[in-house]
Amino acid sequence: MIVYGKNVLKDIDLKKIRKVYLVENFRDKDIIQYLEQNHIRYFYRPKNQMDKMIKGNHQGVIIEIDDYQYASFENAFNSNFIVALDHIEDVHNFGAIIRTCEAAGVKTILIPKDRSVRVNDIVMKTSCGAVDRVNIILVNNLCDALKKLQKANYFVYSAFMDGEDYETIDYADKKILVIGNEGKGISKIIEGITDVRIGIPMRGEINSLNASVAAGILIFKMK
Amino acid sequence: MIVYGKNVLKDIDLKKIRKVYLVENFRDKDIIQYLEQNHIRYFYRPKNQMDKMIKGNHQGVIIEIDDYQYASFENAFNSNFIVALDHIEDVHNFGAIIRTCEAAGVKTILIPKDRSVRVNDIVMKTSCGAVDRVNIILVNNLCDALKKLQKANYFVYSAFMDGEDYETIDYADKKILVIGNEGKGISKIIEGITDVRIGIPMRGEINSLNASVAAGILIFKMK
Repeated sequence: MIVYGKNVLKDIDLKKIRKVYLVENFRDKDIIQYLEQNHIRYFYRPKNQMDKMIKGNHQGVIIEIDDYQYASFENAFNSNFIVALDHIEDVHNFGAIIRTCEAAGVKTILIPKDRSVRVNDIVMKTSCGAVDRVNIILVNNLCDALKKLQKANYFVYSAFMDGEDYETIDYADKKILVIGNEGKGISKIIEGITDVRIGIPMRGEINSLNASVAAGILIFKMK
Repeated sequence: MIVYGKNVLKDIDLKKIRKVYLVENFRDKDIIQYLEQNHIRYFYRPKNQMDKMIKGNHQGVIIEIDDYQYASFENAFNSNFIVALDHIEDVHNFGAIIRTCEAAGVKTILIPKDRSVRVNDIVMKTSCGAVDRVNIILVNNLCDALKKLQKANYFVYSAFMDGEDYETIDYADKKILVIGNEGKGISKIIEGITDVRIGIPMRGEINSLNASVAAGILIFKMK
């Protein structure tokens, strides 16, 4: 996988870096010193070649890293609190939710294989490196995965606009919070297996929160 | 001000729309019906002209609206709970915070004139129309503004990484939550006049949240 930018270089786990490309007239001594000190292989490339590799503002620094390694499903059973994302699409939301999970001590995130964001360079950047400190599990079928966890005594709490007030619930010890898609919310099939529909009471007229903000409020209550 | 996109058109307060430009081969009947029914003036323009007006994906719909009208500072005294943004820079964070305020019933947001985001098209879009349902006040000097509010018995609660646990605080009736800059946090001058430094206890290693997520958690606790 390819990521880029000066700050990103310094945030990435050193073990994951394969090599770094610098633009040919690159002069930031800090960065070069960082590469030298950490024995990271680096190569100079013409600007037009760099621009072809990356569409964003790479700041003259492109980093080749190991692809993200998703954790295996068996890992989920080691966590008492799991966050499941029911087809989240926005990379910034995904990155912010990973960051929130890491900060709240949530170790496991489930995402489905189809119609969902995956870990990419923007997610890594938005998560501020938290992707390396939580287990993200890619499941073939989110509903089946949740059912298996329910058999192991996990309770499924899914977020709905009109769900039960999240502040008044006595949460189970083993629990899963499901956050729905930004536009469509929780899917019908996941609603069907939900144990408790939970919600954040709203006082305005628009009555919806950004998905990563809603996730943050619920995660810090349930943790 | 210029905004764009089909969903945005339907979200905007009708009174604010001056006119709409549609790309010359525009065929979405729903949109045209919406314009007709609401007596909105619209004009067709060639695609290359539309592309010059907007860099983003305008979907053939560009909307000219009245510039955002900031509220006057006197309005702040009508709210018992105010959110102040100490030099937030990211438009998506600003939009998400406005949306959170609206959903939580917070009517007043203070932002400083210098080195801060302002209301623009991306903020409007990210806020899902909430900009029209809260008072956003642009102040010359955030510190002076907070001092004036303190004289009227408002308590200033500023968010710090190592602040007092936000869940254990007995909040005053008249209160201001200050959220700091994404990178630098709360500025020294605002820290100097802060009544209570509040924080969200973290359990991870990265120990920072996205600014709009942190704001969401605090706002829904303090509301």
